[in-house]
Amino acid sequence: MKLGTIKPGTIYGVGLGPGSQDLMSVRADRLIRQASHIAYFRKKGRTGHARSIVEGMVALDAIELPMEYPVTTEIPFDDPRYNELLAAFYERSVARLTEIADAGGDVVVLCEGDPFFYGSFMHLYTRLQGRVPVSVVPGITGMSAAWTATGQPVTWGDDIMTVLMGTLPEETLVEHMAKTDALVVMKIGRNLDKIRRALTRAGREEEAWLIEYAAMPRERILPFSDAGDSAPYFSILVVHGNGRRP
Amino acid sequence: MKLGTIKPGTIYGVGLGPGSQDLMSVRADRLIRQASHIAYFRKKGRTGHARSIVEGMVALDAIELPMEYPVTTEIPFDDPRYNELLAAFYERSVARLTEIADAGGDVVVLCEGDPFFYGSFMHLYTRLQGRVPVSVVPGITGMSAAWTATGQPVTWGDDIMTVLMGTLPEETLVEHMAKTDALVVMKIGRNLDKIRRALTRAGREEEAWLIEYAAMPRERILPFSDAGDSAPYFSILVVHGNGRRP
Repeated sequence: MKLGTIKPGTIYGVGLGPGSQDLMSVRADRLIRQASHIAYFRKKGRTGHARSIVEGMVALDAIELPMEYPVTTEIPFDDPRYNELLAAFYERSVARLTEIADAGGDVVVLCEGDPFFYGSFMHLYTRLQGRVPVSVVPGITGMSAAWTATGQPVTWGDDIMTVLMGTLPEETLVEHMAKTDALVVMKIGRNLDKIRRALTRAGREEEAWLIEYAAMPRERILPFSDAGDSAPYFSILVVHGNGRRP
Repeated sequence: MKLGTIKPGTIYGVGLGPGSQDLMSVRADRLIRQASHIAYFRKKGRTGHARSIVEGMVALDAIELPMEYPVTTEIPFDDPRYNELLAAFYERSVARLTEIADAGGDVVVLCEGDPFFYGSFMHLYTRLQGRVPVSVVPGITGMSAAWTATGQPVTWGDDIMTVLMGTLPEETLVEHMAKTDALVVMKIGRNLDKIRRALTRAGREEEAWLIEYAAMPRERILPFSDAGDSAPYFSILVVHGNGRRP
């Protein structure tokens, strides 16, 4: 058989959901258990959070393709070298995945949460488009797990919901916090102090909850005012809406 | 055995996700297949969309508890009778569910999408709290299915995302549409013309996509400018963010 006649494999970007195995979709569960090739991002020398979520689900003879970030916090993200290094890393990763697909193999790429919602997979996705077949499986977002953990609906009736990253400038945070009903803030980490100031200026601090490790074994829910000086990587801030209800 | 010694059952609010059976979570799938009692909202005399999603999954001997809305569009929602009728209906539904739980039975309440995100289950939930054990299972939102269907990531880097209901006043829509990066609009139906005017005033019409029946057999994706005078109930508008990317 000539090389040109091989049917190319598919790259699946599979949303794992918030971190509990039974909160991934039935489609994701099937794809992961049947996968011949499993790819995932991780920091150098670490298991990687995505890989640890699927522990025990991956076939023993599956080929694993860890994609190790060349930088994490060593170079500030506004340094041009940061983007150059990451872009080259994504290109190398895409070359590896494309090679497998061209030879007829399918690859499951593990994606925390929902792949198209602030995910890392999109950096591969935009480079894979048009080169090999790609299929994306949505997942339950971390923010859904966070508001579910609070035991209170996040949006009612005509509530407006806004999602903000803690990395935004304080003025931008204040402006949007003041004008929304329901609010979600992610990427909190070292931005906690700035987020607290913004919440106070917007008059929303009393309503805010911090959810650490939503849907994970260490899940913890606390009023944002009880948060310390920093928050773990898996932290989400939620302010519930309060709209029309019968 | 005295009545007081019966261990009460649990009411599960189970997110079904956007509508495809294999996009519900593994936990939802298990709860639905094992359920002795299944409850769901529907219009009078209809199968109900939630019930139709789980067709073929419900045990043959499961007891079904359809909860039929007393009104839908016969009375405008700003008429005080609308709220009174709905409140009484929710109370009756809660009484039925509580009776089963008090007798030791579990009930799975089918919830489209994610129960705490603009869901109907919250109207039962707030009335069940403190009376019987309640457990909520998050689901993939309809908006996740919608942006996945477009084949483009919805948010990148520090993008701001705003979720708006088409039922909001035009001025409110314009103000928020103009200031966000990524945008989702739900409850489109008869509000389509108003949404179109608001998008145009906010300078966002060219970027908007309409996704009908996301993750369902009739899924259709079109530029919002190609939409007609109205949109089906299962329609979601998406404007993609365009944030920082390496």
